[in-house]
Amino acid sequence: MTLHEMSISAIQKALGTGELSAGEIARQTLDAITRINPQLNAWTAITAERMLAEADNIDTLRREKRPLPPLAGIPYAVKNLFDVAGHTTLAGAELFSQLPAAAADSFAVRQLRSAGGLLSGMVNMDAYAYGFTTENSHYGATHNPHDLKRIAGGSSGGSAAAVAAGLVHFSLGTDTNGSIRVPASLCGIYGLKPTFGRLSRSGSHPFVASLDHIGPFARRVSDLASVYDALQGRDSSDSFQADSSREQTRPLLDRGLDGLRCAVLGGYFSTWCDADARAAVARVAKALDAHDELLFPDAELARSAAFIISASEGGNQYLPALRSQPARFEPHSRERLLAGAMIPSAWYIQAQRFRAHARQAFKTLFSQADVLIAPATPRSATLIGEQTMEINGQSLPVRASMGMLTQPISFLGLPVTTVPLRTAHGAPIGLQLIAAPFNEQACLRVARVLEACGITDARPAEIAQ
Amino acid sequence: MTLHEMSISAIQKALGTGELSAGEIARQTLDAITRINPQLNAWTAITAERMLAEADNIDTLRREKRPLPPLAGIPYAVKNLFDVAGHTTLAGAELFSQLPAAAADSFAVRQLRSAGGLLSGMVNMDAYAYGFTTENSHYGATHNPHDLKRIAGGSSGGSAAAVAAGLVHFSLGTDTNGSIRVPASLCGIYGLKPTFGRLSRSGSHPFVASLDHIGPFARRVSDLASVYDALQGRDSSDSFQADSSREQTRPLLDRGLDGLRCAVLGGYFSTWCDADARAAVARVAKALDAHDELLFPDAELARSAAFIISASEGGNQYLPALRSQPARFEPHSRERLLAGAMIPSAWYIQAQRFRAHARQAFKTLFSQADVLIAPATPRSATLIGEQTMEINGQSLPVRASMGMLTQPISFLGLPVTTVPLRTAHGAPIGLQLIAAPFNEQACLRVARVLEACGITDARPAEIAQ
Repeated sequence: MTLHEMSISAIQKALGTGELSAGEIARQTLDAITRINPQLNAWTAITAERMLAEADNIDTLRREKRPLPPLAGIPYAVKNLFDVAGHTTLAGAELFSQLPAAAADSFAVRQLRSAGGLLSGMVNMDAYAYGFTTENSHYGATHNPHDLKRIAGGSSGGSAAAVAAGLVHFSLGTDTNGSIRVPASLCGIYGLKPTFGRLSRSGSHPFVASLDHIGPFARRVSDLASVYDALQGRDSSDSFQADSSREQTRPLLDRGLDGLRCAVLGGYFSTWCDADARAAVARVAKALDAHDELLFPDAELARSAAFIISASEGGNQYLPALRSQPARFEPHSRERLLAGAMIPSAWYIQAQRFRAHARQAFKTLFSQADVLIAPATPRSATLIGEQTMEINGQSLPVRASMGMLTQPISFLGLPVTTVPLRTAHGAPIGLQLIAAPFNEQACLRVARVLEACGITDARPAEIAQ
Repeated sequence: MTLHEMSISAIQKALGTGELSAGEIARQTLDAITRINPQLNAWTAITAERMLAEADNIDTLRREKRPLPPLAGIPYAVKNLFDVAGHTTLAGAELFSQLPAAAADSFAVRQLRSAGGLLSGMVNMDAYAYGFTTENSHYGATHNPHDLKRIAGGSSGGSAAAVAAGLVHFSLGTDTNGSIRVPASLCGIYGLKPTFGRLSRSGSHPFVASLDHIGPFARRVSDLASVYDALQGRDSSDSFQADSSREQTRPLLDRGLDGLRCAVLGGYFSTWCDADARAAVARVAKALDAHDELLFPDAELARSAAFIISASEGGNQYLPALRSQPARFEPHSRERLLAGAMIPSAWYIQAQRFRAHARQAFKTLFSQADVLIAPATPRSATLIGEQTMEINGQSLPVRASMGMLTQPISFLGLPVTTVPLRTAHGAPIGLQLIAAPFNEQACLRVARVLEACGITDARPAEIAQ
């Protein structure tokens, strides 16, 4: 059995029996990355020395017969906007490449380190996390492991490609408007965008303070839940973190649906996607007995408001650098950020007010269903370099529109699990399972049901096999 | 003994013994308002019928020997931006004068009604609460009871004048940038601006959601505390209300200083005021043994950020009306609000980010002192119509600058009690006693110490005697 065929708990078992050592896992992983990454362009830095040292710590625990932490010996990668001690945090931007190295790990990486994970390195993304394609003008495009000519999606494209290629068991990404859910959809893996405020963002490079989320990718629902559980923890230095109680989801996964009501999110979400996406929704709806279609009539407004908040807060964030070093900016983002900074404050305030209003409105939907089903992307992955795609009879810009179905949901801060299906031609396409705030366990349980009955498919791409 | 010479508890006692009835209090109050208000221009509506009915309820309780609520039979007035059932909420603006009457009382008025207060009516203010002088271009200027040629301060000028004239025992105002503290200072009475988020604002007409506070005025510290205590209460419909526990302050008042450390806030706050204000600070500092001077070096930045947030949120609030009915706007505010709506979002976001930063910085000051002393206004009341005043060798616009010492403090959401002193010429001038968030009891206790030793003086103006 090769590494990528083993779940986190299978690896735990093998480490326990001595069948595997963490050192072997680290070396195998580093070899595979060295061999395969040139085709993917996912890793922007490989932390071999650290990974081997972390593996060594685990093997010491094993030799001393001490209990292993929950992610012991599990290889992973992080989007290059998470601080990793000793490395410069790039956030996908040439602008930051000369900055000093981070002095300490980000909160999330500290959590994973203490859970025993083995960090393989940092992976590619859209510059500033502002994009849905990971066609990075400085660090190059990340290639989709299922079809190297195609985009991996973004902005956490490297994180999704690394997992979809079978090179690591999980990865961390961030999601402001869809940056976990879009690449999870296009690369055919599971992704979790938790509730806004659930996980600490300390030590990750911010893009839009009032919309940023961090979250994991994995090829198995149980692995996704284990990583999410390890990431949970109170961090008093993150003033956005909600003070709600932590909930370990891994033990709840096999409860099945057990009373969870699922419904399809119609209207905007079934209009702005192609036949492949609609077929995927129909298959999942049937499997889940989800006969009702619910509507969120303000979806377009929510997307517009998310655009305004992203451009305004992103513009504020980068204004000093836009003034002093405009030439070092990613060309796709420079004008968007400048224009964003100049958006009238009355629009920004209105967008934030609408957000509070729409959150209230969504409560009604969650009184009718626990989990809402919608496509994660309007279609499967487009070709690298492709500028437009046709959706609903209209030609839309790929860069902006791949996130049009995720944006209204993250705007409201709702937790979402993305589940991978395949189109008739075998291309990955993902669906969103959306739950009420702080009800992550509901969408993880539904994802587990779909995985168990074989509707979803997150097998790694051939490239790795 | 005339009514205004009696404290709330003295009235309670007189109602209990039968020496006074609530009906007599209501009739005396209404007579005095009818006689004196023409000189003040404080009341914009008198609610005689309601006041007599509320008095009747109290007298019924008395006849039935049932216990009286804490503000039973106490006459009061509210700024005309609080909803009062059956009356149109003006918010000082001609713009709203044709709107339908409010269907229900605001949360604060409901609290006062159930505490037994007698509502005499609604009082004048700057239009939209956007000003520091209560020179209202539609409803006229409110006159200072201590010198009718002078301003009462604003925006809660009517509320302060009504109490300073001895016509009611307390009143409600609102404070966004200084609108309770400025008129309390210029009219020579006590005022309390509680911590941001402490009291529900439901049913009051908003100006700047992220800065608005409501709070009481009174001529005695014990009365101020009793009203504040009656206003406290959890209101789930106000999403800005902090979920901190309520604290009844009236029983704590006579603890004296008992370990409370006081210090003078220097720098900006001693630079931008005249010799009268500085002399008042020196007197109070001496009485309180406050030898240390502490600094808040970012006061000017805080004031600028408060300007940006006020103009932006005010602009957003009024943009639809500014578009459709610009001619109905208060001329002093029209351009300010329009310009505010167009402020670049990056500035607004930066102002909100600075606010979070400055709040942290203030924590250090509160580790060195419990209560900080600063003038509430740069000088005593100017003449009605006066456009400029000279402070620190500079000619400043009165309308904007009367709040220059209050604005940096409300920006941070800190609780403040204003205490009244007199200049060498007998004009009222107030000081701010500033405490850490949710530590209202500290500044109320210090105010009570100053009142007890005769340093402060809130005797009503001659006009009423």
